[in-house]
Amino acid sequence: MNLCLIDQRQVLSFIERCMLAVGTKPNHARSLAEVLVEGDRRGHYSHGLNRMDMYVKDIQHGVCAKDGEPAVEKETVATALVDGKNLLGPVVGNFCMDLAIRKAQNVGIGSNHYGIAGYYSMQALDANMIGMSYTNTSPLVVPTRAKECTLGTNPISVAAPANNGDSFVLDMATSSVALGKIELHERRGDIIPEGWGCDSQGRLSTDPRKVLNGGGLVPIGGCEATGGYKGFGLGMMVEVFCGMLAGSHYSQNIRTWKVTDRAANLGQCFVAVNPANFAPGFNDRMSDILSLHRGLEPAEPSCAVLTPGDPERIQIIKCQNLGGIPYHLSVVKVMVSFSL
Amino acid sequence: MNLCLIDQRQVLSFIERCMLAVGTKPNHARSLAEVLVEGDRRGHYSHGLNRMDMYVKDIQHGVCAKDGEPAVEKETVATALVDGKNLLGPVVGNFCMDLAIRKAQNVGIGSNHYGIAGYYSMQALDANMIGMSYTNTSPLVVPTRAKECTLGTNPISVAAPANNGDSFVLDMATSSVALGKIELHERRGDIIPEGWGCDSQGRLSTDPRKVLNGGGLVPIGGCEATGGYKGFGLGMMVEVFCGMLAGSHYSQNIRTWKVTDRAANLGQCFVAVNPANFAPGFNDRMSDILSLHRGLEPAEPSCAVLTPGDPERIQIIKCQNLGGIPYHLSVVKVMVSFSL
Repeated sequence: MNLCLIDQRQVLSFIERCMLAVGTKPNHARSLAEVLVEGDRRGHYSHGLNRMDMYVKDIQHGVCAKDGEPAVEKETVATALVDGKNLLGPVVGNFCMDLAIRKAQNVGIGSNHYGIAGYYSMQALDANMIGMSYTNTSPLVVPTRAKECTLGTNPISVAAPANNGDSFVLDMATSSVALGKIELHERRGDIIPEGWGCDSQGRLSTDPRKVLNGGGLVPIGGCEATGGYKGFGLGMMVEVFCGMLAGSHYSQNIRTWKVTDRAANLGQCFVAVNPANFAPGFNDRMSDILSLHRGLEPAEPSCAVLTPGDPERIQIIKCQNLGGIPYHLSVVKVMVSFSL
Repeated sequence: MNLCLIDQRQVLSFIERCMLAVGTKPNHARSLAEVLVEGDRRGHYSHGLNRMDMYVKDIQHGVCAKDGEPAVEKETVATALVDGKNLLGPVVGNFCMDLAIRKAQNVGIGSNHYGIAGYYSMQALDANMIGMSYTNTSPLVVPTRAKECTLGTNPISVAAPANNGDSFVLDMATSSVALGKIELHERRGDIIPEGWGCDSQGRLSTDPRKVLNGGGLVPIGGCEATGGYKGFGLGMMVEVFCGMLAGSHYSQNIRTWKVTDRAANLGQCFVAVNPANFAPGFNDRMSDILSLHRGLEPAEPSCAVLTPGDPERIQIIKCQNLGGIPYHLSVVKVMVSFSL
């Protein structure tokens, strides 16, 4: 393992400078750099520095706007329809989540890749609210019983505050695994566990090459017998909240993954709920249910029971102790040579 | 297979009379009968006539109230906290969903088993709105890495209207399968697929007896390697929306499944969202995404690709063609002898 350690301020500044070099507005470049570094710091390396080149290319090819600000198109006391003006995902995401926190419900439209979904849901935590964030993405998932990809990995993120800064942070794709995990196995020449992907005939396969060449990811739950149709249903639910409400692109009319021939025009949905409007003691109950789970006797003594958000918390502490974010040297090399 | 066919009005009337016999208010008995028959008609037999004895016993033992009406405890323009007064689940569910449709957001508290979650989310369809319904339930699911049950099957239901009465209806437990499916395999002496349940040591097991005796259901996604932690996260997310917001019982302080020693005091959450507040053309997009999926070439020619709600739609048409609801004779015998 070729690892290197980089101070997070340096990563932030590097991403910012790369984006500025292609003409991105300074505050937009900053927003993007922040969400990517936060992805890495939380251990979601597939949504961090590793993806910078994609954002740079989107700006370079003009499929993503470098100037302008999001605009509210339609509004009620509790909802808003926001036109993202084809700006960088984090610019639109931050705008919408801020609005949602003030209103307690909101939906965004026409944005771009926005990094980790949890970055937005967690913005509600400081206001002691429940935050939610959903986005549709390019088709990579094959529905139960089908053979072709029609849905993205369509993530769901829900964050809820407990006491003393503790929280519940669910941040999950509705596919069994991320595409990156399959790519990693292919590069190493390893087989993948059954239930991660299928071949071009819609059959579960343990060969990563078949999944990547004409096959696709499988919804969470795996095959039909183990409940894969539930994961398919959740992926479509995310489309209902995003593409259907926002009137953006959806399902198969979203551009192919990593292709920059046209604007992504993704649909996103941001929600904030104030627990103060419901039964008193929300934070206490949250702390209690988190403690209850963390205190469970584990099946394997060396594998503690974790609640959603704990793996990321462990990674953040690791970065703090190391004094930087550990990266695979290969990712850093690719990004540095790309920036030259 | 010993099947019999019963007219749905007869099933409705039978359940109503059984509930009235133990002193349930007439409109409450009617509400319960309606949701149970709808469960059967949609093919969710585990939440239909099959469960009637549980509701009768809850009333008989005084752990469920036979009189009174739900009350709004706290209210904003977009939210409400409702005290279910320990009434029958459907009485509280109908009250809350009706309020949610009028407000477009709402959460209920202190209710009882409410039948199929989809019964409530679907009430929004007539108003051309998106409906959602969530409930916590007695602990039956073992979290990833743990050995004991801490969460219920905590269902998620989301319904969204398309054109001409068509709709998307997701109605799923956050466990891989329902407990009833494991019981069925045990009775037949069959093994279960890997990924349905675990033994008392938290290890996946294909022996239904081990799952039912000291083990438990597994979250959707199965073991950790296939993403079971996502299902665990979704189950906990339902607790955030239900037990945490409502201040009802939650997780391990909910009474054991089928034990009637104390009130269930479940937490439930009902949401309605009006697509008219967002981009125009919602119903058209819904029809399009449903058609797109139903028109996919299936991996197995005999197994058509279905969208959430289609299996239930097929069962409803079957009942209409048969002129009644097909029941296993054993269920009918048990319920008839119970009513005598």
